[in-house]
Amino acid sequence: MSGSVFGKNFVISTWGESHGKAIGVCVDGCPAGLELSEEDIQVYMDRRKPGQSEFTTKRNENDCVKILSGVFDGVTTGTPIAMLIENSDQHSKDYSDLENVYRPGHADFTFDKKFRIRDHRGGGRSSGRETAGRVAAGAVALKFLKQLGITVTAYAKEIGGIAVSEEGFDLEEAKRNALCMPDAETAEKCMKLLRNIKSRGDSAGGIIECRVNGLKPGIGEPVFDKLDARLAYAVMSIGAVKGFEMGAGFEAARMLGSDCNDGFESETGRIRGKAVNSGGTLGGMSDGGGMVFRAAVKPTPSVSFAQKTVDKNGEEQELVIRGRHDPIIVPRAVVVVEAMAAVTIADLILQDMGSRMNDVERTYVQDNQ
Amino acid sequence: MSGSVFGKNFVISTWGESHGKAIGVCVDGCPAGLELSEEDIQVYMDRRKPGQSEFTTKRNENDCVKILSGVFDGVTTGTPIAMLIENSDQHSKDYSDLENVYRPGHADFTFDKKFRIRDHRGGGRSSGRETAGRVAAGAVALKFLKQLGITVTAYAKEIGGIAVSEEGFDLEEAKRNALCMPDAETAEKCMKLLRNIKSRGDSAGGIIECRVNGLKPGIGEPVFDKLDARLAYAVMSIGAVKGFEMGAGFEAARMLGSDCNDGFESETGRIRGKAVNSGGTLGGMSDGGGMVFRAAVKPTPSVSFAQKTVDKNGEEQELVIRGRHDPIIVPRAVVVVEAMAAVTIADLILQDMGSRMNDVERTYVQDNQ
Amino acid sequence: MSGSVFGKNFVISTWGESHGKAIGVCVDGCPAGLELSEEDIQVYMDRRKPGQSEFTTKRNENDCVKILSGVFDGVTTGTPIAMLIENSDQHSKDYSDLENVYRPGHADFTFDKKFRIRDHRGGGRSSGRETAGRVAAGAVALKFLKQLGITVTAYAKEIGGIAVSEEGFDLEEAKRNALCMPDAETAEKCMKLLRNIKSRGDSAGGIIECRVNGLKPGIGEPVFDKLDARLAYAVMSIGAVKGFEMGAGFEAARMLGSDCNDGFESETGRIRGKAVNSGGTLGGMSDGGGMVFRAAVKPTPSVSFAQKTVDKNGEEQELVIRGRHDPIIVPRAVVVVEAMAAVTIADLILQDMGSRMNDVERTYVQDNQ
Amino acid sequence: MSGSVFGKNFVISTWGESHGKAIGVCVDGCPAGLELSEEDIQVYMDRRKPGQSEFTTKRNENDCVKILSGVFDGVTTGTPIAMLIENSDQHSKDYSDLENVYRPGHADFTFDKKFRIRDHRGGGRSSGRETAGRVAAGAVALKFLKQLGITVTAYAKEIGGIAVSEEGFDLEEAKRNALCMPDAETAEKCMKLLRNIKSRGDSAGGIIECRVNGLKPGIGEPVFDKLDARLAYAVMSIGAVKGFEMGAGFEAARMLGSDCNDGFESETGRIRGKAVNSGGTLGGMSDGGGMVFRAAVKPTPSVSFAQKTVDKNGEEQELVIRGRHDPIIVPRAVVVVEAMAAVTIADLILQDMGSRMNDVERTYVQDNQ
Repeated sequence: MSGSVFGKNFVISTWGESHGKAIGVCVDGCPAGLELSEEDIQVYMDRRKPGQSEFTTKRNENDCVKILSGVFDGVTTGTPIAMLIENSDQHSKDYSDLENVYRPGHADFTFDKKFRIRDHRGGGRSSGRETAGRVAAGAVALKFLKQLGITVTAYAKEIGGIAVSEEGFDLEEAKRNALCMPDAETAEKCMKLLRNIKSRGDSAGGIIECRVNGLKPGIGEPVFDKLDARLAYAVMSIGAVKGFEMGAGFEAARMLGSDCNDGFESETGRIRGKAVNSGGTLGGMSDGGGMVFRAAVKPTPSVSFAQKTVDKNGEEQELVIRGRHDPIIVPRAVVVVEAMAAVTIADLILQDMGSRMNDVERTYVQDNQ
Repeated sequence: MSGSVFGKNFVISTWGESHGKAIGVCVDGCPAGLELSEEDIQVYMDRRKPGQSEFTTKRNENDCVKILSGVFDGVTTGTPIAMLIENSDQHSKDYSDLENVYRPGHADFTFDKKFRIRDHRGGGRSSGRETAGRVAAGAVALKFLKQLGITVTAYAKEIGGIAVSEEGFDLEEAKRNALCMPDAETAEKCMKLLRNIKSRGDSAGGIIECRVNGLKPGIGEPVFDKLDARLAYAVMSIGAVKGFEMGAGFEAARMLGSDCNDGFESETGRIRGKAVNSGGTLGGMSDGGGMVFRAAVKPTPSVSFAQKTVDKNGEEQELVIRGRHDPIIVPRAVVVVEAMAAVTIADLILQDMGSRMNDVERTYVQDNQ
Repeated sequence: MSGSVFGKNFVISTWGESHGKAIGVCVDGCPAGLELSEEDIQVYMDRRKPGQSEFTTKRNENDCVKILSGVFDGVTTGTPIAMLIENSDQHSKDYSDLENVYRPGHADFTFDKKFRIRDHRGGGRSSGRETAGRVAAGAVALKFLKQLGITVTAYAKEIGGIAVSEEGFDLEEAKRNALCMPDAETAEKCMKLLRNIKSRGDSAGGIIECRVNGLKPGIGEPVFDKLDARLAYAVMSIGAVKGFEMGAGFEAARMLGSDCNDGFESETGRIRGKAVNSGGTLGGMSDGGGMVFRAAVKPTPSVSFAQKTVDKNGEEQELVIRGRHDPIIVPRAVVVVEAMAAVTIADLILQDMGSRMNDVERTYVQDNQ
Repeated sequence: MSGSVFGKNFVISTWGESHGKAIGVCVDGCPAGLELSEEDIQVYMDRRKPGQSEFTTKRNENDCVKILSGVFDGVTTGTPIAMLIENSDQHSKDYSDLENVYRPGHADFTFDKKFRIRDHRGGGRSSGRETAGRVAAGAVALKFLKQLGITVTAYAKEIGGIAVSEEGFDLEEAKRNALCMPDAETAEKCMKLLRNIKSRGDSAGGIIECRVNGLKPGIGEPVFDKLDARLAYAVMSIGAVKGFEMGAGFEAARMLGSDCNDGFESETGRIRGKAVNSGGTLGGMSDGGGMVFRAAVKPTPSVSFAQKTVDKNGEEQELVIRGRHDPIIVPRAVVVVEAMAAVTIADLILQDMGSRMNDVERTYVQDNQ
């Protein structure tokens, strides 16, 4: 049944297959009065689109986004914002031999088991192309957050096992190199590694880190809709993500309580969590101290040499995947992580609006004059 | 706003504070015709309840669960199953000095910022006691899964940095020792470590691993409601969990595609994923190969010695927390992880029921005779 | 599957059967900072409880409500408010003969077809007793609305075909007579009629009208979550309600556009809809002019003389229903209509909080100081 | 916030404004394996599109629907079905004088109050054009229901106060005349009336009746998600609908219990409700006896002569509405009622799939071989 709708208040519905006519998203619940243009969205689409470096697929897509509704005179109206991206460069023939055989690490087999029918062209709905809709929706959320003084910034923390060093860390650098790594030297090493891996027809993975600044304390809900939980939901829903951690994450499991507790800082009565190990949440609500989380991205499952697999009948097959593929998807996934984080935080900020009787009264009365 | 309702089809709503009159849960959406008794639930409540070993708080709660609705003649009727656990041993006075000061690593500060009012007694809604409702709901889900041949088994994989060895691994052992560790020797080492940590007034964390067997392929939905994503959501919503990973998880980020891809096995035409690195999902749907995931649990934030913190006014304070606390919550959290996994899988199995036209037709027609 | 959870932001989950141990409700999403006591709730419970006049069932229930969570020092904390009402006077034996036969006009047959199992005692989950949970939740919503200056008032507009006259209309009178009719003379006529109907073992229905005052313009969402649509959903979910209309309702279908359009009034720049025929909404959003809607309530299906029906095997049976029944449920349903209207409006007021960028900014920034 | 998403399992998200680039809908949750073509949808679009008779607006729209995703080789794949209809004939200038003045009976005022910004061209999101998305989604639902042997048929029962007679009733006739009335003689009378009303620049309303056949017993959920309640929600969300009733509806309020109870009929052990007064539900679940409900549609608020109203500043204005308008929208709304009923029933059929343990087991096991 339905699984392509995300969020409770800032709700996004994505649709589209890799080789269908178009892909898109509908954003329902964005407040009225936010300035928004196609250019605002396109900036993010361009960061995700293929063909930008030697490390991404050569599929040639403009990924030109059109806003079809919900914006009037350059401002959101409070009604659904539909966005559409046409698919132009579809080499569907490349995939004809994948109709009856299951690619290892891909969703071909599980789609077949679930639905008994499958659009096998380029992975259909399970293609990474699906994330274009997420990015378009995320761009709206990022604009919304920016208006509140909140920034969301992701980058490649580690690629092929080589991690960014603390000394070399420079957030601006992540915008300059093809790997979105905030450390020029490490990026260089990783590129060398990736060229080698690519030349062998293999692929690599990595870790994406994301920082959220400017988020006030108290966003997120106790118990199930914890900010961490909703973020994990959002980020783990990105294909190829196999792990999620907040702050110290798995390392926290090895700490003592006395080391792990972050404590607070206070300036002119304004309290903030220190947010070193917690990652910026306490009890599932933001503590005002800046948020950090990480996502583990597995290597692209499409490799170029022969792999053992099975076909629809369970017969063993040797498979060589043709078509165009990224040797690593981490650089393109960076903006997807930002997008999903932004959608989640926007959703929880709207959910928070009605948490306090005095805010409800003030808004209700003020608007009623 | 609302954040204590979880699930779409198998929906659970928990309620209750640590030192209120009672805590409980309402399960809406459990199919009719499942045999269910209070004993079925109590078994799981007993695994979670405090005071069972030297490593858990001495708070004395029977955690005796009562089913108030939805079960008739020992069988579920399809209507909401309300369950209630009375709070008996409430030492509310222990907490009176916490009214105006924020415990490090706890949710006191964020609750205050979010709601401007806080039940400070024992952490109120953010207390670990809140998980009793999850476990009661999980027990229903586990019974449901068992009927379909699915088992969910969690255990402590690592405590205080000491991990279970592969050679010593014995799932039965996890039921015998106080730490729920599937390796007697490692458990012994961990207990020694924990006694030492406890004697110093400190606390430790660990890693919980969970295995799901018998799950057929195709459970979970493409895109947002991926099985991994919903599991991450469920598990990360447990207080103190700071990380989640499927299969190889963060290690997958360091693998080559050629190593990471699991491939398939087929027996008499019945195909299953090999599920070594994937953790049992492909494209967010179960691949039939057995599921494995892990949760990182931070050390209990309540430690017994003086900590620096701030009060409501942002003034620095030195705080000594009294009351009764677990030096480690991992052993008690094991059953909570099972519970949340079971609720999630049950939810997605029900969501899957309408995925295929021929299943819908068969069920519709068969019932209409 | 799940059907006992209602609302998106102010979420209520009811549970319980007529002859189970207890019935109750959990309210998730009520803002923190609202003064709330058990007495606030009990006032409404008392209006619904049986045995209050010659026209209601003699079942003897105190319907004494207990708040189990979510309220601290007399104020809501923003966490779920669980409320419980014990069932005391259960004459389960009265129903033993209904195990295999279907009462006309009741849900016995449909429960059996849907779930294949049925708690036949007193209608189980389909009993009017289920509405106790709605009223408890509604009492919380009504307190919330009162704080914003909004009142919700329902009364019996028509009983057994005899309608309240416009001249005799007196809202205060509805609180005085047993039928909740705002017209003493009409109430007298109806009571005479009802005594006659009751003496013949028959039953009657009626129409409940509800007025909402103080609701500012703009509450409700365009398209699907229109205020009228959500109200219809809420009110039609009350057992025995067979029709719903806003303002002129079905009469509007017979008007000319020139007569039906209400127009606006403006005082010191404050615009309101005139809300004569519209019932107080335009395009599904409140127009500030006072809201009026009506619900048609069918006669109690339990009548005391022999009725033709069938049993589980489809065999014709003659059935005489014993047990205690209301000859009319309209007076007791009045408070249920108020409750469901209040829950719906509270839900949509919270949903409205995030509709305007400037409100979101103001709340976000103000709270972040 | 979000209000353009409808349904829980068969979820539709509509978007688009009257004079934007396009309008559309995304259907998420339609089972895989349903044959579906653009022609299947277009048939319903054509019934709704303007310019088909003297009684509908002359706006010239082809309303040509495109399926952009979710269908592969003519069959649904279980992924979201996005559908798009381009807006071609936009006379935006016609509306420039409506920017600052509020049309009586329209949503101009409430949109302004809610969002502080409004796409005033042709009513923007509140235009009847919004229903094109509903009809496209409804066409998918109707195809789904047809596959299960369920038909949904609506028609004009009454127009301008003139009702179809019981003797003249002929369902086939409703497909022939421009008013969708199942009685040629009454249709003739109504057309005469409408010509007269139109010539005076006025407008009329009417009542739409809808019959659902082939629905098995047990669809709908107890308590809140009653079939009647969800239908009322769906139908009352259609602009201009001011009332909803099931079966005898408001007349049931005037009946005696002995008259109102329908009883059952049984043929070869197959039991069905007689469904005369109930409208085909008992306790909110279908009773297998054929369903009947009605919707009251108010007259088109756009009339051609001068009306008194106010502008944004609350100043009184005399307004003459130009542009193209229907003197009656009932005939075009007939298919919208069918669409919303179908979406609701499809949603509840999918929700019902997991209600019985034995169905869940059978589907789970059967698929797992």
